[in-house]
This record gives sequence, structure tokens and C-alpha cells, in this order.
Amino acid sequence: MKDAAFESIQIRDSSLAERTAEQISKLIVEQHLTCEDRLPSEFELAELLNVGRGTVREGVKLLVARNVLEIRRGKGTYIASNPGEIPDPLGFAYYPDQLRLAMDLVEIRGHLEPWVARMAAERANEEDLSILRQACSTVEQDILAERDHSNSDVRFHVSIAKCTHNLVVPKLIPVITYAITLFVSLTESRLKMETLVDHRELLDAISTGDGSRAEKAMARHIEYNRVLMQELIRKMSDSPGSTERSSPEHLL
Amino acid sequence: MKDAAFESIQIRDSSLAERTAEQISKLIVEQHLTCEDRLPSEFELAELLNVGRGTVREGVKLLVARNVLEIRRGKGTYIASNPGEIPDPLGFAYYPDQLRLAMDLVEIRGHLEPWVARMAAERANEEDLSILRQACSTVEQDILAERDHSNSDVRFHVSIAKCTHNLVVPKLIPVITYAITLFVSLTESRLKMETLVDHRELLDAISTGDGSRAEKAMARHIEYNRVLMQELIRKMSDSPGSTERSSPEHLL
Repeated sequence: MKDAAFESIQIRDSSLAERTAEQISKLIVEQHLTCEDRLPSEFELAELLNVGRGTVREGVKLLVARNVLEIRRGKGTYIASNPGEIPDPLGFAYYPDQLRLAMDLVEIRGHLEPWVARMAAERANEEDLSILRQACSTVEQDILAERDHSNSDVRFHVSIAKCTHNLVVPKLIPVITYAITLFVSLTESRLKMETLVDHRELLDAISTGDGSRAEKAMARHIEYNRVLMQELIRKMSDSPGSTERSSPEHLL
Repeated sequence: MKDAAFESIQIRDSSLAERTAEQISKLIVEQHLTCEDRLPSEFELAELLNVGRGTVREGVKLLVARNVLEIRRGKGTYIASNPGEIPDPLGFAYYPDQLRLAMDLVEIRGHLEPWVARMAAERANEEDLSILRQACSTVEQDILAERDHSNSDVRFHVSIAKCTHNLVVPKLIPVITYAITLFVSLTESRLKMETLVDHRELLDAISTGDGSRAEKAMARHIEYNRVLMQELIRKMSDSPGSTERSSPEHLL
């Protein structure tokens, strides 16, 4: 009984905090605040939104949790640099069947990324190409030094996406490459060498503005990954002790 | 000085809360908890994670803010039904140039959705089709009753995506159709009638399993939207008083 009463207070508070978070968020959009801007003080916000300072604090916490705001040590609360963007925005980590998720993602990558590579070749400027070359080298250095190259691999694919000058495409790549880490973890030297060769071919095609070659290179790169993935999944489902609910750990 | 001290406490608290949130999130994944499951009590979690109940409460709040957990009135804290999925996951609301965003989204839709329509036609089962027919009727009813049909329109496109049986495609549609509301708000009867005709054609093509017809119908549907959008943007940039930072309000 005591618990229930306590909880209803929590709910009331949280919906007020939620409304306050929405109002602060509206303020950010309307006043065109960017990561250069410090959020008005708790006191000012409380006055402006006509709520208590405690409610403002709760609303701010919600927006920090959602990466709309960030607390900078010793400086105060600022607008985040990519407000509202969070890691794993579609909650893939909570999907029960991680292998099916990986296959479904690679299906999307196989359709989306060759098109992205073509646009990249058609639209890249000198600055884009210089960043792309750097990203390509970083993956190579990681692979040759036998370091984990999953992050630099995603950054290479994002750099290609940035060549398109479409605002959204580079945001989608980290979402659909969620599964890269899974396969990089397998660290087969064969896949590593294929990656080096495929990435170089992509870089060359994009640098020379050859859209059709870039599209084909990316299609081949992702198809190779897909086939390898399917092989692994077949092996796993043949092996005893595999459960209905598969998880990346089972792969490693 | 007092403010600075207060803030450093907040930061310490928030990183501890963040680590606790990560541990709770790991627990959900490892124990395969779903929306059927109640989260262990504050007391149990505090014992298990070896932190104070206040820290557990802060960690839970973070996960509620990110839609991993939800508080059900009078029932307690549960795993959310789509854990980790949040509205506007890429933070589009904070993009300074909403018109450029809309054009970049329609570029992606023009590549992705015709492919989705083809897969839908090739893979839909009877249950999928029955849901799709219902979704199509709802849009029609909204349009004929002159109600706002932006939500039902997105649901129709999501229903098509569900026919593919790819887990991720239906999650991407609400992201890339972010701009639909913008254009539905224009309420040109011409666009409404086009929508009715295009949706019916899509439904027919998918129902009869004709992938190529579905792909073409979707391509035409989105291209029509794109051209209309471009016209509007041209009109707006010609009109006086348009600012560098465009926002949806300017369209209405």
C-alpha cells in the first residue's frame, strides 16, 4: 500500500518532468540553440516555464539521458553536439534473435550501401576524398597491427556516406552496420584481407568518380559478408546446444 | 563557487547512475526479459549491483527516459514493449534546415521504399495482407472525412514494410517518413486523391504478389511527392522573407 502511494507520486512527477522536457526541447528548436549554446539556468527556466526548480532539474535529466543536453564539467549544461542522437537508437541490443537481426541488417546494407557508394563517387569533393583516404588507412593500420578494426570499419563506411552530401545517409550507416562488431570479432584473416582489398577498390572507384564501379565494389563487399554470415549461422544451427534464442556470444 | 560544487556532485551521480543503467540493461539482455516481465525491485537491484537504492532509482529513470523500461500505473516497473526504441531516434527535430532534411529523406525513400514494396509483394502472407488492407482503408477514411491522415499514412507504409518479414525495415520507415506530416499539412486535395489512387495500386500489386508492379507503383508515389516538395521549396525560396534557417512552419 505504501509502495503504491509512492509510485503514484513518481508517475505524477515523471509526467510533469516529461512535459517540462518537451518545453525545453521546443525552446532549443525555436531559439535555434546549438552545441555552442549554454542552456539557460535552472532559475531562468523555472521562471519561464512556470514550474519548480526541481521539475526543471528532472526535465533536464530526461534530456541528458536522451543526449539532447550534455553536462560539461565545470562549465554547465549545454546543447549536445548531435542533439537527440543516441547509440543504438532502434534498441537492437534488446532483440532476442541477434543472428536473424544480423541477416536482416545485411539484407538492408546490400540494397542501400551500393547506392550510397555510387552517389559518393558522383558527389565527393576533394575534402571528402581526403577524409575517406584517411579513414581507409586507419582500417588498414588496425588490421595490419591486429587491433580490433570494428570502429574504424564503421567510420570508413560513414565517410563514404558523407561523400553523398545527404544529411541522413551518414546517420543511417551506424544503425545498419550494428552487426559489424559481431563479424569483426571472428577475426578470420581471410575476411581481413578481403576487407583491405574491397576498401581499396571502393576508395579508388570513389576517388576517380566512377559511380558504377563504386556501386559494384560495395555490392560485392557486402555480398561477401552476407555469404560468410550465412555459413556461420548454418554451422551454428547444425552444432548441438544451439538455442532458439541466439546471441552474439554464441558466435565467439 | 557553490554552484560549481553542486554541479560536480551532479556529474559524479550521473556517471554512477549511467553505469547502473548499463548494468540493468545488461541484466535485461542476459536474462532475456521482455515486456511481460516486471523489473526486479529497487531493493533486489541494489543488492545485486552493490549500489544504493537512490542510485538504482536514478539508473531506472535513465532507462525510462530511453524507453527501455516503463512505469505501469499501479503495477510497477516493466520492460518496455519495444525496449530502446524512441520517437525521432536520429534527432531530426533539432536539424536547423528542415526543408533540406525533407528533401534528403525523400531521396532515401525513393531508393528504399520501391525495393521494400517489391519484397512485400514477394513475401506477404494472408495475415499481412489483411492488416495491409485495413491500413489502406483507414487512410482512405481519414482522407474522405478530411481528418489529418499523417499517422495513418505512416502506418500504411509500415504495414507494407512488415510484409517483408525483415525485422528492421518496419523500424526504418517511421524514421525516413519523418517528413510526411509536413506535406500532409499542405492538404492539397490533388495530393490527397493521388494518395488514394497510389495506395490502392500498391495494395493491389502486393496482394497479387506482383513485385515489379509494386516496385513501380511505390517509385511513382514517392517521385510524385518529391516533385511536389521541390516545387514548394522553390516557391518558398522565391518568396521574400524566407530565412536561411527554414522550418516547417514556413510551409504552412
